[in-house]
Amino acid sequence: MSGAHPELTQSLGYRFRDPALLERALTHRSKSSDNNERLEFLGDGVLNFSIAATLYERFPQLTEGELTRLRAGLVRMETLAGLARRLRLGGFLGLGGGELKSGGHDRDSILADALEAVFGAIYEDAGFEAVHRVIQGLYRDALAGIDPQSVLKDPKTRLQEYLQKQSISTPSYNVLEIVGEPHQQRFIVECSVPGLPQPVRGEGLSRRAAEQQAASSALEALLARDA
Amino acid sequence: MSGAHPELTQSLGYRFRDPALLERALTHRSKSSDNNERLEFLGDGVLNFSIAATLYERFPQLTEGELTRLRAGLVRMETLAGLARRLRLGGFLGLGGGELKSGGHDRDSILADALEAVFGAIYEDAGFEAVHRVIQGLYRDALAGIDPQSVLKDPKTRLQEYLQKQSISTPSYNVLEIVGEPHQQRFIVECSVPGLPQPVRGEGLSRRAAEQQAASSALEALLARDA
Repeated sequence: MSGAHPELTQSLGYRFRDPALLERALTHRSKSSDNNERLEFLGDGVLNFSIAATLYERFPQLTEGELTRLRAGLVRMETLAGLARRLRLGGFLGLGGGELKSGGHDRDSILADALEAVFGAIYEDAGFEAVHRVIQGLYRDALAGIDPQSVLKDPKTRLQEYLQKQSISTPSYNVLEIVGEPHQQRFIVECSVPGLPQPVRGEGLSRRAAEQQAASSALEALLARDA
Repeated sequence: MSGAHPELTQSLGYRFRDPALLERALTHRSKSSDNNERLEFLGDGVLNFSIAATLYERFPQLTEGELTRLRAGLVRMETLAGLARRLRLGGFLGLGGGELKSGGHDRDSILADALEAVFGAIYEDAGFEAVHRVIQGLYRDALAGIDPQSVLKDPKTRLQEYLQKQSISTPSYNVLEIVGEPHQQRFIVECSVPGLPQPVRGEGLSRRAAEQQAASSALEALLARDA
């Protein structure tokens, strides 16, 4: 097997000194006991830190809570799988028979794990600065798309603004139920938005928290509808 | 205020180019709005990755699940607070009035957060390799104390072996209760060890899982007693 993968080298912007590391990163556990699971552990760590460091530098005005939230969105499986598809990583994966037949080449979890393993392999091959550059390159668009203002605003505010832009009337919130003992009540509210087929529920330890959760779900539903 | 902290420089094995970074890392939010919370976010990331990379290199025979478990023990608050005490970090902290009075200098969470912030500050000051060296130095004893064999064994086996070494007779396990619907039962067991004043409980989704949890708690109790 050639260890070079010139297309991947090109799209990653990184050429491995030791191509065997890249091969291992692309080998799923269904294929071999010499697979990418340990490299994935390493790569998950380096990705989390690389993104943390990038966000820290880029958004000096955000608090650690806001940075944590932003990072969670950037390192989650769906985001990683999307990046892996852009790299056409699926075509380079070594999969066992069962995974091959069941479409493992395009499964989010397999793609995301393999991309993390590739990050781990680059760290092994050339150290932190090398993999930090690769990660920053891959995330360039995602990072450019972050609006720090919107991170700073709470979900109710963001929902309100989204609806205003579309000239939809304002959402309404209703408390449906308060459950639990007086000292540990949970509030269940619903948020009705004219654009959504049915109200969206939220739950929290305060009415405000429940409303924020409902607003967040309503906004996600609207964004998914309008995407 | 002097930004030098020669004792801390000595015990960390690191001299800051920009002493203002160290000052910020040592400033609790109760003291100033220019505090260590963002540096803690950065430092948490670099610590997790530095420990991951060290464990990956040191224990080529462990799986990613075992590495994850080992890392969790090394980066948890109690471990960090212990390291911070060894550095006498509490004496250098900038705390507000309330935290000062209530003993914040020796609170686990404040110490652990400040040590993470110091790691973040070193990364900012000099990059990953510099902070990786400092972390490896601080964790030298903890890492040397890891027995990869014991990580590989489950708690019941380890408890058994510990008791054998001390010539204490074997533990006994009893199911106390099975709760929940048939398809989602939880087992509550107790583990009796001659050396412990009372049986230790464990809970799990299977009898085996509950026994392992009880064994783990019993072993911890024995180790604490014998420490």
